[in-house]
Amino acid sequence: MSDKREEPVFMEGAVCPLPLGHDEQIVMGHGSGGKMSHELIGRIFLPPFDNDVLRAANDAGVVQAAPGARLAISTDSHVVTPLFFPGGDIGRLAVCGTVNDVAVMGAEPRYLTAGFILEEGLPQQTLARVVASMQAAAAEAGVVIVAGDTKVVEKGKADGLYINTSGVGVVPAGVELGGERARPGDVVLLSGPMGDHGIAVLAARGELGFEAAVESDVAPLNRLAAAALQAGDVRVMRDPTRGGVASTLNEIARQSGVAIVLDEAALPVRPAVAAACEMLGFDPLYIANEGRLLVIVGRDEVDAVLAAMRAAPYGTETVVVGEVRAEPARRVLLRTALGSLRIVDMLAGELLPRIC
Amino acid sequence: MSDKREEPVFMEGAVCPLPLGHDEQIVMGHGSGGKMSHELIGRIFLPPFDNDVLRAANDAGVVQAAPGARLAISTDSHVVTPLFFPGGDIGRLAVCGTVNDVAVMGAEPRYLTAGFILEEGLPQQTLARVVASMQAAAAEAGVVIVAGDTKVVEKGKADGLYINTSGVGVVPAGVELGGERARPGDVVLLSGPMGDHGIAVLAARGELGFEAAVESDVAPLNRLAAAALQAGDVRVMRDPTRGGVASTLNEIARQSGVAIVLDEAALPVRPAVAAACEMLGFDPLYIANEGRLLVIVGRDEVDAVLAAMRAAPYGTETVVVGEVRAEPARRVLLRTALGSLRIVDMLAGELLPRIC
Repeated sequence: MSDKREEPVFMEGAVCPLPLGHDEQIVMGHGSGGKMSHELIGRIFLPPFDNDVLRAANDAGVVQAAPGARLAISTDSHVVTPLFFPGGDIGRLAVCGTVNDVAVMGAEPRYLTAGFILEEGLPQQTLARVVASMQAAAAEAGVVIVAGDTKVVEKGKADGLYINTSGVGVVPAGVELGGERARPGDVVLLSGPMGDHGIAVLAARGELGFEAAVESDVAPLNRLAAAALQAGDVRVMRDPTRGGVASTLNEIARQSGVAIVLDEAALPVRPAVAAACEMLGFDPLYIANEGRLLVIVGRDEVDAVLAAMRAAPYGTETVVVGEVRAEPARRVLLRTALGSLRIVDMLAGELLPRIC
Repeated sequence: MSDKREEPVFMEGAVCPLPLGHDEQIVMGHGSGGKMSHELIGRIFLPPFDNDVLRAANDAGVVQAAPGARLAISTDSHVVTPLFFPGGDIGRLAVCGTVNDVAVMGAEPRYLTAGFILEEGLPQQTLARVVASMQAAAAEAGVVIVAGDTKVVEKGKADGLYINTSGVGVVPAGVELGGERARPGDVVLLSGPMGDHGIAVLAARGELGFEAAVESDVAPLNRLAAAALQAGDVRVMRDPTRGGVASTLNEIARQSGVAIVLDEAALPVRPAVAAACEMLGFDPLYIANEGRLLVIVGRDEVDAVLAAMRAAPYGTETVVVGEVRAEPARRVLLRTALGSLRIVDMLAGELLPRIC
């Protein structure tokens, strides 16, 4: 997930950022993907870096590199712990995360870079396993790794290894997507159950206190995204990673100035994930996914897009989960099983540190 | 500096990589930019990632993204310690390092991404200073930061902050540069004194044991590179970062299958750097630079390129330092003040960890 999408919060609450106190420090919550991340970005990163591309606040920056060559460019650093978890590892995560950020802009992901920060003492076998997994994911997504870099830091200055991947994709002519394009009447699709990645990583850490047969959903979504795009009038695509479906839809609601109403009964959650969340007091709406696609589409073309997504890789479980309304603008609401509406806010603090 | 350039070593010595022992670990020398880095890359990264772009082994991968849109793409993670040093900081280093890797391929650097790994407890003021420095360097280089990402790790799992920058540049039509293009008879130019960056960082760590009035040379070299390119028949450009001028020229000698002969008397070193190196037993040929350009040019156009570089930003101290010969192929030699020739090998172990 890229943090540049968060600008709407900055625009809203801190157009003139407050001066920093001398004693303010970075805390884990600043990496949550929720409110604290947005606040940090609005205060520290956006004022100096401000430009049109960042201001669009999407998962990848879209630029016109040459006549006929519109590019989507994205970056993600990966610090997940543990390095290996059911269904994936930091290498697959690093490739898929960046492929997906490029793909949700409607671009065809083409080129990846890979930057490694290695901790002294890391077994070379571990690194070799991660690199092989990256290559397998890259081959699956149809992207090539065109540049790399390796740095080593002393023992105790990292945690095994960290990987940055950056990606470049080509946006086909005529494709225009973005978080600001949702319109009242549009329909919200989700490509599969929520929270598999977060709970799988938590289980791998031994933090559940019980066995959970959950695998991470980490997957390259470029073919799924392309299928949706070809089938109908897609307004917005986004992969709900850190902060979960709730935080991602809040970002879109703010960017588009609309309300998004979710239907609780329609939201897919695997029983094992639901059970884990109930035990831990988590809401699956806030748990990270790494292979799920949110698609917002014009109502007339829902059936075509739904059918296309269900026929595409990683899309067989796609369902309609909600709709876009005009009011209350900039809000996400949940229609509960009892028929009442409750506000679904962005993730407030830190839920699961180092989930990606 | 990108590590992908190292493939020639792999091609030469380990076409069929040895299986990894179970007990082999990453050590600091694997990040040196010298022989150990090459060996690691040849063993772990290149076999799975192998493709035409990486195999070219230059500072940035060059790809044809669309008709009329040839891109140079590069990545660099930065882990320098301390974060601030005379003449620069990790932010300026991160921007310039990637701008330069793109520029030495003859490309016009356009777009950067910035991925931050922050250690819990980092003062926000420190981060703000680094970000402001990045923006100043980006503005100086004429590039925009189009995507960003922030992760936070627990105290003791990083060292303040690490920054990955990746860069995308557009290669003008007709420009063909690469480490494999040096030809016997060509001349080697260097844009200024060697070793300023490495010694400045060492001094900032208090590891010199004496005062040294040396500032890092860290600078964006894209305008200097463009000036050289416009002036004449440039074969190769490269910025001699980790591993220094010696390691960079060894890479080029191997890629092109030529000998490079340096003239010791012509190699520029500031007195303060020379004194520090003498005290510490270092050779300035192996000390990292972050604002120097090596240019290999056809003999007939040396004067024009030299004049153009001296008139360009960061190029006023450009000098001729050597020449390209046919034999002994794949070697760098130094013609000493006494007239004898000695072999200048690639950096063997680790000299200055976490210099960039």
